[in-house]
Amino acid sequence: MIILAPLIGVLAVLFSTFLYFNIVSKPPGNRKMIEISNAIKEGAIAYLMRQYRTLVPLVLVLTFVLFFAINFPTAISFVLGALFSSMAGFFGMNVSVKSNTRVANYAQKGLSEALKLAFRGGAVTGMLVVGLGLLGVSGLYIFYGDPKLIIGFGFGASLISLFMRVGGGIYTKAADVGADLVGKVEKGIPEDDPRNPAVIADNVGDNVGDCAGMAADLFESYAITLIAAMLLGLALGINGVLYPIFVATAAIISSIIGSFFVRLGKDKDIWKALYRGLLATAIISMAFFFILTVYFFNNINLFFAALSGILVTLAIGYITEYYTLRENKPVREIAEAAKTGAGTNIITGIAVGLKSTFPTAIVIVLAIIASYYFGGVYGIAIAALAMLSLTGIIVSIDSYGPITDNAGGIAEMTGMPSRVRKITDELDAVGNTTKAVTKGFAIGAAALAALSLFVAYAEEAKLTVINILNPSVVVGLFIGGALPFLFSSYTMKAVGKTAFNVVEEVRRQFRTIKGIMQGKGRPDYARVVDITTKAALKEFLLPGMLAVISPIIIGFVLGPQALAGMLAGSIITGFLLAIMMANTGAAWDNAKKFIEQGHFGGKGSDAHKAAVIGDTVGDPFKDTAGPSINPLIKVLNMVALLFASYFIMFSLL
Amino acid sequence: MIILAPLIGVLAVLFSTFLYFNIVSKPPGNRKMIEISNAIKEGAIAYLMRQYRTLVPLVLVLTFVLFFAINFPTAISFVLGALFSSMAGFFGMNVSVKSNTRVANYAQKGLSEALKLAFRGGAVTGMLVVGLGLLGVSGLYIFYGDPKLIIGFGFGASLISLFMRVGGGIYTKAADVGADLVGKVEKGIPEDDPRNPAVIADNVGDNVGDCAGMAADLFESYAITLIAAMLLGLALGINGVLYPIFVATAAIISSIIGSFFVRLGKDKDIWKALYRGLLATAIISMAFFFILTVYFFNNINLFFAALSGILVTLAIGYITEYYTLRENKPVREIAEAAKTGAGTNIITGIAVGLKSTFPTAIVIVLAIIASYYFGGVYGIAIAALAMLSLTGIIVSIDSYGPITDNAGGIAEMTGMPSRVRKITDELDAVGNTTKAVTKGFAIGAAALAALSLFVAYAEEAKLTVINILNPSVVVGLFIGGALPFLFSSYTMKAVGKTAFNVVEEVRRQFRTIKGIMQGKGRPDYARVVDITTKAALKEFLLPGMLAVISPIIIGFVLGPQALAGMLAGSIITGFLLAIMMANTGAAWDNAKKFIEQGHFGGKGSDAHKAAVIGDTVGDPFKDTAGPSINPLIKVLNMVALLFASYFIMFSLL
Repeated sequence: MIILAPLIGVLAVLFSTFLYFNIVSKPPGNRKMIEISNAIKEGAIAYLMRQYRTLVPLVLVLTFVLFFAINFPTAISFVLGALFSSMAGFFGMNVSVKSNTRVANYAQKGLSEALKLAFRGGAVTGMLVVGLGLLGVSGLYIFYGDPKLIIGFGFGASLISLFMRVGGGIYTKAADVGADLVGKVEKGIPEDDPRNPAVIADNVGDNVGDCAGMAADLFESYAITLIAAMLLGLALGINGVLYPIFVATAAIISSIIGSFFVRLGKDKDIWKALYRGLLATAIISMAFFFILTVYFFNNINLFFAALSGILVTLAIGYITEYYTLRENKPVREIAEAAKTGAGTNIITGIAVGLKSTFPTAIVIVLAIIASYYFGGVYGIAIAALAMLSLTGIIVSIDSYGPITDNAGGIAEMTGMPSRVRKITDELDAVGNTTKAVTKGFAIGAAALAALSLFVAYAEEAKLTVINILNPSVVVGLFIGGALPFLFSSYTMKAVGKTAFNVVEEVRRQFRTIKGIMQGKGRPDYARVVDITTKAALKEFLLPGMLAVISPIIIGFVLGPQALAGMLAGSIITGFLLAIMMANTGAAWDNAKKFIEQGHFGGKGSDAHKAAVIGDTVGDPFKDTAGPSINPLIKVLNMVALLFASYFIMFSLL
Repeated sequence: MIILAPLIGVLAVLFSTFLYFNIVSKPPGNRKMIEISNAIKEGAIAYLMRQYRTLVPLVLVLTFVLFFAINFPTAISFVLGALFSSMAGFFGMNVSVKSNTRVANYAQKGLSEALKLAFRGGAVTGMLVVGLGLLGVSGLYIFYGDPKLIIGFGFGASLISLFMRVGGGIYTKAADVGADLVGKVEKGIPEDDPRNPAVIADNVGDNVGDCAGMAADLFESYAITLIAAMLLGLALGINGVLYPIFVATAAIISSIIGSFFVRLGKDKDIWKALYRGLLATAIISMAFFFILTVYFFNNINLFFAALSGILVTLAIGYITEYYTLRENKPVREIAEAAKTGAGTNIITGIAVGLKSTFPTAIVIVLAIIASYYFGGVYGIAIAALAMLSLTGIIVSIDSYGPITDNAGGIAEMTGMPSRVRKITDELDAVGNTTKAVTKGFAIGAAALAALSLFVAYAEEAKLTVINILNPSVVVGLFIGGALPFLFSSYTMKAVGKTAFNVVEEVRRQFRTIKGIMQGKGRPDYARVVDITTKAALKEFLLPGMLAVISPIIIGFVLGPQALAGMLAGSIITGFLLAIMMANTGAAWDNAKKFIEQGHFGGKGSDAHKAAVIGDTVGDPFKDTAGPSINPLIKVLNMVALLFASYFIMFSLL
């Protein structure tokens, strides 16, 4: 029976491949569209390839470390994890850059057709992520027969995800901020204007950050939650190990079925169409979980644990929507505050973001209470896994975002008629919401995944008690709590530094290329892409290494108790900071858009200028620093888990 | 011998009174200066009186609650704590508003004379805070003979401090932002211009926020750390209880002696003059602590615990200076980022603030490790107490800030010659640094004080283990971690709302009062003061009640273990958020001033405009939300400690 799992994994990969060929068979539009799309594609692939190349030595070194310090199977798992994660990111992004021009082209046929294609493009990535994740974990389990030897797979996924999130996040926002600062602010030309030399880099950024970054992030959460659940299941015997695998398997089937429910209704409500797919997947999954729980345990306790995980997803989605959608009070208040200037706009935005952490934390708290009640620590892992069972459909919905964003850009750059532009705008507007909601999902998933790893670490380090009254633990809590602050400081600053390089180059091109403002001189897009790539890759190593090395230092110097405190501290503050940053950024973005719709003076008014500043601050918040915290807290816990046995044997204090 | 403690407390109060009469004996300047000073005084006293009046019913209700739920002595202690804290705040502010005009007047005689007077004005508050603190705690101990019955005194101090910080913080920044937005930005008139109707309210704010608020905050930390040390000392017998009292007593003598070391050297370096006083106090205190430790315990272990507390103060001062002084790289980078706009200025500022949390956390961590090594949990409380032994001199240095700030305002408003203005500017510039450094001290002190209370709570609730692997504790950590975020959201938003009222009123006056811009029509200062007062008092109740009620809800619903997690979570994130906000705000402020000195285009340039926006955002960061977190985490722990025995008996889960 267990052989079913990798088979379903392969099925998902095949479904993804089928969708891929279906998309590339569509006409990509006229020569100019293809030209732009190719430029984006080349830039994106060049960036990813260079990023992977930068990581190869690190992966090799760590493989040797794992081989000598742990064992051979772990080293192999690690390489596979890194490889599968890279593949999910790479192919996902590849389809994304091929879908964009086709969606722009199909927008001429109408909203329904364009939506279908854009979602299909997203689904390629979504199915690939869960398919490769399940294939890797279940395949290795069948091969090794011991979940402990698969931890390396999670670590490989973690490592790639960390660097993809950080590097991609820096890239996307540096290009965006750079393009906006010179183009919109200094030159007064619209977004996605082909005269702006950073316009291609900006579109590349959407793909490497939002698409490849998110895919790697959720691939990691998916894999490590599955592994953590299997590890914690060991205490319940073989059924405890197999149940998570079958839950994940069933979820893939649900996601494939659920994806067919994405269809535009009569009300032409795009968000509803996507949401229907999510809801269908959730309901079908629950039916499967019910059957599986009864089959494996002869009772339905763990079904309720899983249910709480699903409800978390819906609740976080609802809370994120409330605080970030432009129809709602918080965003309108931020927009109104822009009337008295950028200062008040920013103060109000941060207040909204800070506030949004509380209900989100309460939702996580309720899920922890409920799932523990129904299944102990294993129950918490199962709740996390149930939440992540929606990964396939969530990544599909999320990857839809950069595709439509790019499609809009291509429509603008090739001067397509306003009718088409209106459709891509509509698709893109929903893309902003889906991005915010899936970001909330990714943060919640990361927190629960990290929590499962944390418990697994405690078991591995033979800690039955982690006592806050023990000063080692308090010390760990302080250090761990401060880590996401330090890490965010690096990633935010990296955006500033990289953006500075982009600004200088764009200014130089505007100054030196003749006729560029009249649309006669052709900007050197490739050079901006190249500069952004180099600068982003220069900045991403330091914060990345911080995440890998901190638990090793604390583990060896202060010991396993302090390390446990550190892990707990990092999960708490990391979760809160990430939510705060993601929601503040999204709310600022939508407040700006709300003003652009004609409120408080509309486009070009003082309020609008103030809101643009809020949006600029929000960019690294929501797309770099915030999302990068997810892999940070997972990597910290993962490294701790891998080297736990060493920290027991050797530690200074 | 124990009778010495209240006597020295009285001595400090007498010394403060002597300084007070010495100050008011000086000539207050000309008629116009007196007029302005009186307007500030009336506004400040009116605000404080109304604030106290608002709190009287709450204090009465809580007195009854304590009387029935705990016992009569606790209720009495509570009333005394609230009363003494109010007195320290009230008289401190009273001298502050009397010193300002005299410092402006003395500035005509030269820097040295003006500095001496300004510091003396600060010392009135400083000595009053420690004098009343020691008198209250030691007097009640002599009377009751049981430290447990004095906890109420700490709670009274906590409650007043919470509302003073929140209310004063909202007041000061709403008036400041309101005055700046209309005056500087819309009307283009300089700061402290007498034509601005909000100018008096702005000066009132400096006194009620920075002076009375900080005094109440440190009075609270001082009192509760002393009480917590006595409680934890119970385990060591009578010496464990008496030692903290004598440490505090000795520290007052050191502070009085140390205050004489504040004297301007030949290099005319004001900061050095103040710092010399701090260093002298620290060294004399250490000598006393050494003798006391040998006398009480026949060994010097606890001396090293105390030493670590003193070193924390110096280290935090150094770190805060590094990140916020305009001579240093971080501030220059923020200023440079203003060249590319407000967005990059704000991003860089937040990155600096986030980063500054890490070294500060490491300092606290080292102090915890060292003091625990030398004296267990009691050692941690002694380290906190040693840190707070510097309260007298620190409050003196801090209260110097608003005095010189106001003196500068009075010099500007009365059109004193530029020579005088230069001296008040120099004094004020150092005031900004002292404010940042003492803020860092207050946060560090609050964290250690809260930590001592936390341990005392665990003992009172008979918790020998607070296990993070227990889901109740994890749940508590999440809720507690989110509380400072939620609380800051309320306080930041309150500033926005109150500032909005101020802006509307100031605009109305500019519109309706004839000849106001020509200096002929007299603005209605009192009305702005009145509106700010009412609005601030409307906003301060909700966040204040949140702090008092949360531990009771969590204690009764989720039980003492979850409550312990909540307390720990709130200390960690509260400490980090407060440091981040205080340092970010100070760094933005100084980056703006750095540009005003003529860098990157100087005053009026685009970079300057961008930096002004950063400074506006920084105002509620550093003067409202950040400092308000200090009493929040102390009140949470205090309420938990007071009702601990109930949570053991009754809790839902």
